[in-house]
Amino acid sequence: MLKKILVANRGEIAVRIIRECQDCGIPAVAVFSEADRNSLHTLIADEAVCIGPGNASGSYLNMDNILQAAMSTGCDGIHPGFGLLSENAEFARKCRENDIKFIGPDGDTISKMGDKSTARQMMMKAGVPVVPGSDGAVKTPEEALKVAERIGYPVLVKASAGGGGRGMRRADSPEELPTAMEQAGMEAAAAFGDGTVYLEKLIINPRHIEVQVLGDQHHNVIHLGERNCSIQRRNQKMLEEAPAFGLQESTRKTLCEAAVAAAKACDYEGAGTVEFVMDDRENFYFIEMNTRIQVEHPVTEMVTGINIVAEQLRIASGAPLRYTQDEIQVKGHAIECRICCEDPLNDFAPCPGKVDFVHFPSGFGTRVESALYSGAEISPYYDSMVAKVIVKGENRIGAVRRMRRVLGETIIRGPKTTQPLQQMILYNRKFLRGNYNTGFIGEELPELTEMIQTAGMIKE
Amino acid sequence: MLKKILVANRGEIAVRIIRECQDCGIPAVAVFSEADRNSLHTLIADEAVCIGPGNASGSYLNMDNILQAAMSTGCDGIHPGFGLLSENAEFARKCRENDIKFIGPDGDTISKMGDKSTARQMMMKAGVPVVPGSDGAVKTPEEALKVAERIGYPVLVKASAGGGGRGMRRADSPEELPTAMEQAGMEAAAAFGDGTVYLEKLIINPRHIEVQVLGDQHHNVIHLGERNCSIQRRNQKMLEEAPAFGLQESTRKTLCEAAVAAAKACDYEGAGTVEFVMDDRENFYFIEMNTRIQVEHPVTEMVTGINIVAEQLRIASGAPLRYTQDEIQVKGHAIECRICCEDPLNDFAPCPGKVDFVHFPSGFGTRVESALYSGAEISPYYDSMVAKVIVKGENRIGAVRRMRRVLGETIIRGPKTTQPLQQMILYNRKFLRGNYNTGFIGEELPELTEMIQTAGMIKE
Repeated sequence: MLKKILVANRGEIAVRIIRECQDCGIPAVAVFSEADRNSLHTLIADEAVCIGPGNASGSYLNMDNILQAAMSTGCDGIHPGFGLLSENAEFARKCRENDIKFIGPDGDTISKMGDKSTARQMMMKAGVPVVPGSDGAVKTPEEALKVAERIGYPVLVKASAGGGGRGMRRADSPEELPTAMEQAGMEAAAAFGDGTVYLEKLIINPRHIEVQVLGDQHHNVIHLGERNCSIQRRNQKMLEEAPAFGLQESTRKTLCEAAVAAAKACDYEGAGTVEFVMDDRENFYFIEMNTRIQVEHPVTEMVTGINIVAEQLRIASGAPLRYTQDEIQVKGHAIECRICCEDPLNDFAPCPGKVDFVHFPSGFGTRVESALYSGAEISPYYDSMVAKVIVKGENRIGAVRRMRRVLGETIIRGPKTTQPLQQMILYNRKFLRGNYNTGFIGEELPELTEMIQTAGMIKE
Repeated sequence: MLKKILVANRGEIAVRIIRECQDCGIPAVAVFSEADRNSLHTLIADEAVCIGPGNASGSYLNMDNILQAAMSTGCDGIHPGFGLLSENAEFARKCRENDIKFIGPDGDTISKMGDKSTARQMMMKAGVPVVPGSDGAVKTPEEALKVAERIGYPVLVKASAGGGGRGMRRADSPEELPTAMEQAGMEAAAAFGDGTVYLEKLIINPRHIEVQVLGDQHHNVIHLGERNCSIQRRNQKMLEEAPAFGLQESTRKTLCEAAVAAAKACDYEGAGTVEFVMDDRENFYFIEMNTRIQVEHPVTEMVTGINIVAEQLRIASGAPLRYTQDEIQVKGHAIECRICCEDPLNDFAPCPGKVDFVHFPSGFGTRVESALYSGAEISPYYDSMVAKVIVKGENRIGAVRRMRRVLGETIIRGPKTTQPLQQMILYNRKFLRGNYNTGFIGEELPELTEMIQTAGMIKE
């Protein structure tokens, strides 16, 4: 096993990883910015090293300072968590150059999966369904028009180097396509230094379904079932479920097999997620692979009993997978709500500040992942997510009922949070039917907002 | 299913039961004393009724007030929790007379199991091993001497109506026996109004091993495996484990089968626990049956995945057991620490008062059952237990490591608690070996105390 691990992250995921290291008997070193001196991850680690100012670019994104901290504390592994440097191929390579195990796949795998058009081609070769579109980059408007005619409108022009919604334009007709292509290319060139674009059919309001995979250093890959993460605002997930409710068993099977094929195609090491969009006839298409632990991994842990972070540590140490596919069983139903310090009645504006009082429930089938405590400061520098509340029930309605009650008991006094919105979602008819898609928040926000106001649930 | 349930208890067990009712879609009514107006169980219930003054005899032991509260709120069930009225046969009968389902076995079963010498005879008839002793009551010193000669010294003279260690005397030789008998009889007569005594062989420092059982109204009984609860001070458990580490599989099997036989012998309904003492050669003997949910039920829930309180609600509604014995699997290892507001360095003196700040960790394999919150008052009127911290690991050492870390993260500021003692137990060599017995605290307290003082862990 690795002997000492630096956790290159902050907030709840740093806390989650530090706890797991300690539970596995491995000392954990925290890094913290000047703004995070009193943060929970700093306080619970075996050692903690200050790596720079509050601004993430000077601290949590500062590769040299982090590597320096790892070396000076004698760490032989770095866990990057999610976000920040977790999908930075250069950082993974730098770790290797310094004889520190980057807990995740190697830099080349991260690079390949990070380049969307390369990933798309790899997947096609591996027989994983991708969204109908161009076979690689599209160079001229004429070429684009031909592809669009074949796959049908509306289409999406996307930057090869893209991410986070930038370098992306929609075209509903041949007339709109040349302009969309020009604009996407210019935006991509400005944002990523690479104007290359490709074409995909636009699937309107698909379900976002993803599959958790684990791969070891010995070419073994298994999946831990799928999650439905379609409740999103601005491509940010708000509520996730495992398993995806209402899928036909045959779809579930081919979907999960496709995810394993995707991971095998890149000889994947560690925990990863293969993301798909799914239309209302259960056709599914690869969109991307997240080469890291994901925010919503606990829902999968709840229904499989597998400790994904502990498996990451074992895999990084070179151990073979401890489970065959047959040994993975999905039992019950889990839901996670990501509570963010944002105002759901004001376009999700961030609400940093001091949390005066926190109270989380615990109990059967309940888990909270959070770095909050009464008196903690929510910094404006970082992501607004402050807690993940996760429940498991014997079935979906059991999980929904438990989550309603658990969110009802959850108290975060001080900043506004998304909690009232999530509470209302749990009573929404479309949500309760279970086969909702990514159009959910767009369509339901007005009614949900009204329910919050009627219930007087928002803090002034 | 029952339509509305009154929870006739307080503290963490009331919170546990209220949450479960709500998770099952059943409204829960809390009762509270004047001292518990701001207690968590009062705050989270769907309704709450004040039933009397802080003193338990006027409130939580006041049968008429509780029944009145149940009727005025339209409850068709009462869950008694543990302690208080949970093993009061008269209360169970009064519930029935008022057409309210007492969630537990009927009054007659409670009575039979409450009378120790009756229970002992029932068990002998059912083929459950009991501690060698007299066949029923012993009336004269001569009779006692004959029995003692047969079973061997030391012996214990015990009150038939006894409990809580009263009406009990040890005799190490024939010379001591007549006096022991006289004293036990007098104490029993004074305490219970019944001077009847019987004899048992004294098993010195046995392990306390108990088996969780579930019985339905249709004569089905299953067990959920055993627990080792040998870490006790003054017959009060402090730390419990499931399963009992180091037992031979054959012993585990016969032990659990004996527990099922015990429950079947009294046609048991609901969740119950059959308690045994076990000597160092794994001979085990029935000591008593607790006809209620137990404090330590969560360790069994953690390793079996069965929600015992939810099963109580189903059974009380008349549903047959949902599991056959074959479907019960014990996976991993769970440990519970009961944190009490007592001073472990001052003979466990109670330390009531205000809790200024509370912080409990959560996360994978972690569960906390507590009614605490920052600012809560610990009343001198009630039991000193304020939180149960429960962890699960893949195996025992994994659970021990997790518990060390979880207790390390647990903060209860204000009153002194047993937390530092439990933290030190987790590093004790005898504890780590795993086959400790009820002599543990007596033998190890000096060393544990020294460790606490050395570590500077106790609050002044």
